[in-house]
Amino acid sequence: MNADLVVVGSGFFGLTVARQCAEDLGLKVLVIDRRDHIGGNAYSEAEPETGIEVHRYGAHLFHTSNERVWQHVNRFTKFTPYVHRVFSTYSGGVYSMPVNLHTINQYFGKALGPAAARALVAEQAGEIDTAAADNFEDKAISLIGRPLYEAFFKGYTAKQWQTDPRNLPGATVTRLPVRYNYDNRYFNDTYEGLPVDGYTAWLERLADHENIEVRLGTDFFDASQEVSKANVAGNVPVVYTGPVDTYFGDAEGQLSWRTLDFEQEVLPVEDFQGVPVMNYADEDVPYTRIHEFRHFHPERDYPKDKTVIMREFSRFAVAGDEPYYPVNTPEDRQKLLAYRDLASREKDVLFGGRLGTYKYLDMHMAIGAALSMVDNKLTPHFKDGAALVAGGVDA
Amino acid sequence: MNADLVVVGSGFFGLTVARQCAEDLGLKVLVIDRRDHIGGNAYSEAEPETGIEVHRYGAHLFHTSNERVWQHVNRFTKFTPYVHRVFSTYSGGVYSMPVNLHTINQYFGKALGPAAARALVAEQAGEIDTAAADNFEDKAISLIGRPLYEAFFKGYTAKQWQTDPRNLPGATVTRLPVRYNYDNRYFNDTYEGLPVDGYTAWLERLADHENIEVRLGTDFFDASQEVSKANVAGNVPVVYTGPVDTYFGDAEGQLSWRTLDFEQEVLPVEDFQGVPVMNYADEDVPYTRIHEFRHFHPERDYPKDKTVIMREFSRFAVAGDEPYYPVNTPEDRQKLLAYRDLASREKDVLFGGRLGTYKYLDMHMAIGAALSMVDNKLTPHFKDGAALVAGGVDA
Ligand SMILES: Cc1cc2nc3c(=O)[nH]c(=O)nc-3n(C[C@H](O)[C@H](O)[C@H](O)COP(=O)(O)OP(=O)(O)OC[C@H]3O[C@@H](n4cnc5c(N)ncnc54)[C@H](O)[C@@H]3O)c2cc1C
Ligand SMILES: Cc1cc2nc3c(=O)[nH]c(=O)nc-3n(C[C@H](O)[C@H](O)[C@H](O)COP(=O)(O)OP(=O)(O)OC[C@H]3O[C@@H](n4cnc5c(N)ncnc54)[C@H](O)[C@@H]3O)c2cc1C
Repeated sequence: MNADLVVVGSGFFGLTVARQCAEDLGLKVLVIDRRDHIGGNAYSEAEPETGIEVHRYGAHLFHTSNERVWQHVNRFTKFTPYVHRVFSTYSGGVYSMPVNLHTINQYFGKALGPAAARALVAEQAGEIDTAAADNFEDKAISLIGRPLYEAFFKGYTAKQWQTDPRNLPGATVTRLPVRYNYDNRYFNDTYEGLPVDGYTAWLERLADHENIEVRLGTDFFDASQEVSKANVAGNVPVVYTGPVDTYFGDAEGQLSWRTLDFEQEVLPVEDFQGVPVMNYADEDVPYTRIHEFRHFHPERDYPKDKTVIMREFSRFAVAGDEPYYPVNTPEDRQKLLAYRDLASREKDVLFGGRLGTYKYLDMHMAIGAALSMVDNKLTPHFKDGAALVAGGVDA
Repeated sequence: MNADLVVVGSGFFGLTVARQCAEDLGLKVLVIDRRDHIGGNAYSEAEPETGIEVHRYGAHLFHTSNERVWQHVNRFTKFTPYVHRVFSTYSGGVYSMPVNLHTINQYFGKALGPAAARALVAEQAGEIDTAAADNFEDKAISLIGRPLYEAFFKGYTAKQWQTDPRNLPGATVTRLPVRYNYDNRYFNDTYEGLPVDGYTAWLERLADHENIEVRLGTDFFDASQEVSKANVAGNVPVVYTGPVDTYFGDAEGQLSWRTLDFEQEVLPVEDFQGVPVMNYADEDVPYTRIHEFRHFHPERDYPKDKTVIMREFSRFAVAGDEPYYPVNTPEDRQKLLAYRDLASREKDVLFGGRLGTYKYLDMHMAIGAALSMVDNKLTPHFKDGAALVAGGVDA
């Protein structure tokens, strides 16, 4: 094995680290991924019957306010002017999300201005004192009042967490976004858009450097192959972006995750729902949302007689499931501290990315964190011989 | 008077002609305007109490799909990423405009997909046969059905025209925009935005050329001043962008226009309505819409304790009013033909712009038409000595 650095995982975190090290530090970087494709969860592919770009692991929308990240990503792809907007179906009606003045006026059948709407919501929220609220439901009601909570948060949250919101911790809710104007942009970031040629082309360009080798279908814990933990750890510097508990053989117990099930369907119509993402807030609708991928790229020449939709279902992950969102119970946080401690003592191994740090990271956050890891850890190590000390999984 | 070309009117048409001739043809251009400011109807100014940019002659939104115009305007200003969206208050509710799937679902209290909504509207529109419809109301109902017509078009149209829609010609309605998706952009153009430093700064840069002189407060029909019709016409080439009927002393009768009254008010709140433009569709609300100017520039640092709103009222213009929109009755079209005839016989005078051609022109259309006039008429004349023949007011 001829590598100065091994990167486990070819998601945005791993590939960004690999690219920076290959290009700026001139290192030979070997990237492995146990999946048969690069890109991690941002991977996308053309649905074969329609050619419509589908995001295999859930819809991915790029957005950032970080100038450095924006400069960086623009080296590898152009972005369309796509701006994300989401609607929600509740009890036979369709509402604008996140909750805004239009949503409030539509729900209450009124035409209030910002001040009057604020007063109405404040009055309804007065039912419960925020300081006294100790579960999700009470906390939410104390912030936006019972009617809006019951319509737009109760059922959706229950489905997302398979848990009655009265049994979820109040601390989960720090704020609920309510806008007292008609702005219904989903993200507030300065920059937003979708990669013109799709995510996979972007990720491929990121990996396309003479100093980078990518080996797919290669599991770091498969000791029978060359680039395994057994062979590599301690011998060649490693950036590991897989699940931190797996790295340590679940020594401190398994961290809990939520996962998603996706039901993809090709339908014989041009436009199924008229919008990229429709949330379903009713508890008796089993899915949380439906994505219709063609609407992410209105500029493309997609077929006029077919469309691809994907229903999304949320549940707790069990063995074998893709880990998507950290559940983050008090027990998880205890375990994480223990893993962090183990990680900081692991020689020449850095832990990064979503799985490696047990943190939900948007793409721009994963990219930003990867750039920082190169600046703060890998460059001093490879340039000046500084010791490669992981700050733990929270690095 | 030391000028190769006289331009009457310093709106977008006049200034674009002046700039192109000054710069590309090296002509000395003298621009006059009877108002005390440049810019024509696109003129804007800071409201003195708040500093908020106010468009004195009604809200102006720039949008175009014309590449040449877009290149041209970007020489003189940068544009913000503002995208125009409008809502409508009707009978105590607030709806998304132009009528789209959200509007339809909200109005009927449903959660229909595109196909079902299309079927519903088609069924309702079936009440009247489009071919047989000979007034505005019947035509509109034949296109979108009675319920949506009565909510969103009837009262608004009646107020705009001070006329019962049953007494307006059916031909006025060629199509009514209905979108069977959740897109509520007001304009469909490729490029859109507002000038970063405001309209007046843009217009001033357009006029800022050593070969251009602008004389304000100067009426072309005031024979007591140097650059009057009496002194100039037939002696120096003229591009005239004032009202065509006025040029000929109303010889063929006056063309009819609609005008607008604006009621501007400073209010002691940060946000009055939460949106730049709110339409009022109810017939018993006297104004057609309210503009709140701060929302056109969310990127600016405007005061947090004050806002400027402007109520808009529509009526037929009488003597002394600003002519805004051509009424375009059959009589108007007869008169226009006669003026066109006169114009084509007027030596060395070209008629252009909104008033000179009796046509509603968006800014990008006025600019595009000005560029064409320079290419097709003024350049051949000044470069090759071709005769300067007006194609009439419709040039
Ligand atoms: C459903 C969903 C929707 C999302 N939507 C958005 C969005 O709209 N916008 C946004 O900005 N972000 C979104 N994200 C977040 C985005 O996916 C992450 O930011 C990004 O994937 C993080 O990259 P990463 O490299 O850290 O992790 P990943 O992309 O998960 O990459 C980790 C890689 O490591 C590999 N790996 C794991 N274990 C091993 C092993 N033992 N051996 C070898 N390889 C291994 C995996 O196969 C995987 O390819 C979403 C995430 C999910 C789950
Ligand atoms: C209410 C309203 C809203 C609008 N909103 C938009 C919008 O959102 N987007 C858009 O693209 N366009 C909009 N427009 C259109 C825009 O204003 C026109 O495209 C633009 O003004 C056309 O420029 P112009 O030079 O042809 O005419 P004008 O701007 O009207 O300029 C004509 C000039 O000629 C001068 N003049 C007339 N008679 C004489 C005389 N006898 N002597 C000297 N000078 C004279 C006038 O004082 C005036 O300054 C709007 C128009 C109106 C009325």
